[in-house]
Amino acid sequence: MAGAAGPNRRYDPDRRDRIVDSCLDVIAEAGLAGTSHRKVAAAAGVPLGSMTYHFTGFDELVHEAFTRFAHTVSDRFEQRMAAAADHESAKRAVVDLITRDTLTDQRDLVLTQELYTLAARDPRYRAITNAWMARSRAALGRHFDPTTARLLDALIEGLTLHRALDTEPHGAATVVDAVERLTAPRC
Amino acid sequence: MAGAAGPNRRYDPDRRDRIVDSCLDVIAEAGLAGTSHRKVAAAAGVPLGSMTYHFTGFDELVHEAFTRFAHTVSDRFEQRMAAAADHESAKRAVVDLITRDTLTDQRDLVLTQELYTLAARDPRYRAITNAWMARSRAALGRHFDPTTARLLDALIEGLTLHRALDTEPHGAATVVDAVERLTAPRC
Repeated sequence: MAGAAGPNRRYDPDRRDRIVDSCLDVIAEAGLAGTSHRKVAAAAGVPLGSMTYHFTGFDELVHEAFTRFAHTVSDRFEQRMAAAADHESAKRAVVDLITRDTLTDQRDLVLTQELYTLAARDPRYRAITNAWMARSRAALGRHFDPTTARLLDALIEGLTLHRALDTEPHGAATVVDAVERLTAPRC
Repeated sequence: MAGAAGPNRRYDPDRRDRIVDSCLDVIAEAGLAGTSHRKVAAAAGVPLGSMTYHFTGFDELVHEAFTRFAHTVSDRFEQRMAAAADHESAKRAVVDLITRDTLTDQRDLVLTQELYTLAARDPRYRAITNAWMARSRAALGRHFDPTTARLLDALIEGLTLHRALDTEPHGAATVVDAVERLTAPRC
């Protein structure tokens, strides 16, 4: 595959895929403002002309890259919730989503914030974040009523961001406590 | 003031302040990637040379602009919590923070997400978001224990973002419910 993956025009069915993945790598490393067709082509090991062959423009590439990113995160989220067999394990799954799965590395943090920044201004990117939210709520809805699912989704959003941005470590006990409070039967 | 605020070098003590405010306006309108010294100077009604007189560079201007933005939002947050006289009104204040004060316009949404994107990659901007989180938690800490304050702060973050990005409206009743759950005495 080394030859096929090189810059010459051999048979390379994965090329388009690899460009999209490389686009996410470059954005995670340099920020969207520091990302260009040229940098993505270099990272993917494809000639610059290959970019215009596969994508109508930079925006199509970026939109597809963030669509893939959201799908990847949603897949992981769904798998985590689908693996829970009962109410107690569903609560543990939410704790794991917060402490293990979401925004736990620098790459996911940067890509998520870049996507939200685009979604704040552009309806085409808001469509991506809306689909992402809908999938998260549906996955939580397997185990919790709709209001609880919505509140847990907001908690996951807020706690993972604060854990990622904070300079002091957050203990998992606080996360367990939060999930208990939101899912507890009312007094 | 119209003359003093014009592009000629008359006495204009508010010029530096106005440049910082205009910088936030331009970022809210065009995104950080679409913001330049030239656009900010035009928006502030000052000559381009005035920018280099007041700021060592574009980054100093942007850093000061986001510092001011975070202070403005924190001031509003603190006032809302300080005005609450007892536990019940403190809970209502949190609801108001979510439904009335935070990310309720497009400008705040864009500026917040742009700041978080910078903070995800740059410790100098993470210092701004850390100071902001610390002030929010301290303001909540006037009325709630430290764990509850931290959870409410995460809830405010997550719910306001989801309310702002969602295409369907969120009722205030869900927010009231969420605050009740996080602050309820345990069964």
